[in-house]
Amino acid sequence: MNLLKFSIGIDIGGTNTDIGLVNDTGEIIARQHLHTTQYFDAQLFVNDIVFTIRQMILENNVEQIVGIGIGAPCGNFDEGSIDDAANLNFRGKTPLKKMLEAQLNIPVVVTNDANAAVYGEMIYGGAKGMKNVVMFTLGTGVGSGIIIDGKLLYGSDGFAGELGHSILIPYGRKCNCGNCGCLEMYASIRGITQTCVELLQQSPENELAKIPKEQLDPQIITNAALNGNAIAIETYRKTGEWLGIALANVVTFSSPEAIFFAGGIMKAGDILLKPIKESFTKHKLFLYKNDIPILHSQLSENDAAILGAAALVF
Amino acid sequence: MNLLKFSIGIDIGGTNTDIGLVNDTGEIIARQHLHTTQYFDAQLFVNDIVFTIRQMILENNVEQIVGIGIGAPCGNFDEGSIDDAANLNFRGKTPLKKMLEAQLNIPVVVTNDANAAVYGEMIYGGAKGMKNVVMFTLGTGVGSGIIIDGKLLYGSDGFAGELGHSILIPYGRKCNCGNCGCLEMYASIRGITQTCVELLQQSPENELAKIPKEQLDPQIITNAALNGNAIAIETYRKTGEWLGIALANVVTFSSPEAIFFAGGIMKAGDILLKPIKESFTKHKLFLYKNDIPILHSQLSENDAAILGAAALVF
Repeated sequence: MNLLKFSIGIDIGGTNTDIGLVNDTGEIIARQHLHTTQYFDAQLFVNDIVFTIRQMILENNVEQIVGIGIGAPCGNFDEGSIDDAANLNFRGKTPLKKMLEAQLNIPVVVTNDANAAVYGEMIYGGAKGMKNVVMFTLGTGVGSGIIIDGKLLYGSDGFAGELGHSILIPYGRKCNCGNCGCLEMYASIRGITQTCVELLQQSPENELAKIPKEQLDPQIITNAALNGNAIAIETYRKTGEWLGIALANVVTFSSPEAIFFAGGIMKAGDILLKPIKESFTKHKLFLYKNDIPILHSQLSENDAAILGAAALVF
Repeated sequence: MNLLKFSIGIDIGGTNTDIGLVNDTGEIIARQHLHTTQYFDAQLFVNDIVFTIRQMILENNVEQIVGIGIGAPCGNFDEGSIDDAANLNFRGKTPLKKMLEAQLNIPVVVTNDANAAVYGEMIYGGAKGMKNVVMFTLGTGVGSGIIIDGKLLYGSDGFAGELGHSILIPYGRKCNCGNCGCLEMYASIRGITQTCVELLQQSPENELAKIPKEQLDPQIITNAALNGNAIAIETYRKTGEWLGIALANVVTFSSPEAIFFAGGIMKAGDILLKPIKESFTKHKLFLYKNDIPILHSQLSENDAAILGAAALVF
């Protein structure tokens, strides 16, 4: 009989749902996944999560699960629900906490994926011991999670920390949210690709211009930048310049000890991190004299989401 | 002998320092002021504050002062000091808390004036009972104070909440802080006046164009707007548009219950508040479904700074 404390971390994504059994030193000792896209009915989805968890408990001879943490797009902490997530097949409000607790006698915490990511970073990753941290996740969208005094910032309604939709360039690029100029439109997969396309319009002789627009993505642009392609390098320089301004603005708000980045786009590494740091140094208000390091998440991409969700339990 | 709990609130401004004796229901029962400009030596300034407080205690037959709260430009909460305030004659770091506590056996709290203002609003004003509030003070500069979970947000170094220097318009108007496009450059006395001057360049026939630029100020522009002057009205419409974007960005960070405004510029009343609200409604991310009222401070301008400072004690 295993007497350690265990928790379950669940990362719900548009394509896959990863479920992990995590011990209290942050090791994932078992993991399973479901194909989120298969579920058009939230109850069937919840039933399969319950079945998977029960199996994990049995197979690993675990006596007690302290709690279940869930990171999900549009995860609503206050209500323990997923609210109108655009990339899930079951729409409307899904009261995940209530549905799971009805079947399992284990407390459930739901939050959005970026909140889970920053919390995981604080409990298990590079932000261990820090109390004021902000994390940006750069991928299909731009997510953010904010830690204030060692606690996740939820605000008055559970939805604090949506910095991907802070307006960086008033009257700038049209965003899906209805506003113009959101950070997401400059620092997501779509945003970075658009920056490259715009730059290529002025340099039609560039190698990248040979690739059809709809096939261009940050991975291709990163590879081109690594090979010295000037437009690819300039794409990431501009992205870094914009992100540096966004970070300077974050500092005028919560003055964190460090700012972390995670997400697929960070595979660009220093090609993106270096211009972010340069722009941040240039734009950070002089009043903030402490060094505020800009860091890559120290959790492996495969584990981060499950560990982040599991960390919510503590 | 007065057995109520008393505190001292001190508002240090570039011109005047106001010192008030406050009872625990938020009444200022005595007040004095010093001419800040007269002091080139911080020790003499502190000596006169100590003398004033001792006199107040004696004259009002007060047995015990719970604490002294100080709101000051560049007030540093963590160190209890004033750091390099540009508009004070004593420069460098003034360790106010240490200096006062050395002479008076009373705990001292120092913070910046906008933090004091929002805290006063929460303890004595329109934000009573709220736990997540942001306040902007519009005057010579644009200050801000942020309340998270009922506590002032100080961040990792005591300097959180400098939203006047968040970059609203990248590469916009040059700010004294060295950056370009800070909110302060669009919503302070100088910012609003500049907006008006720029609009008048396109409308040289307007009545306001007859006033020499250096005499123009928000008071004159407000009066003109009240009289139907189109450029004056447009000045405040643009200012409100910019502030509404800044507020939408605040909401993506901390999702507050309400946002308050204070400071001399708010004398413009609905001429400014209405376009702020319109722009805020337009730019607020759809995810935030709660009504987030935009409100004028409910403390009288004469009392707000002292009450805010005194509230810090609690």
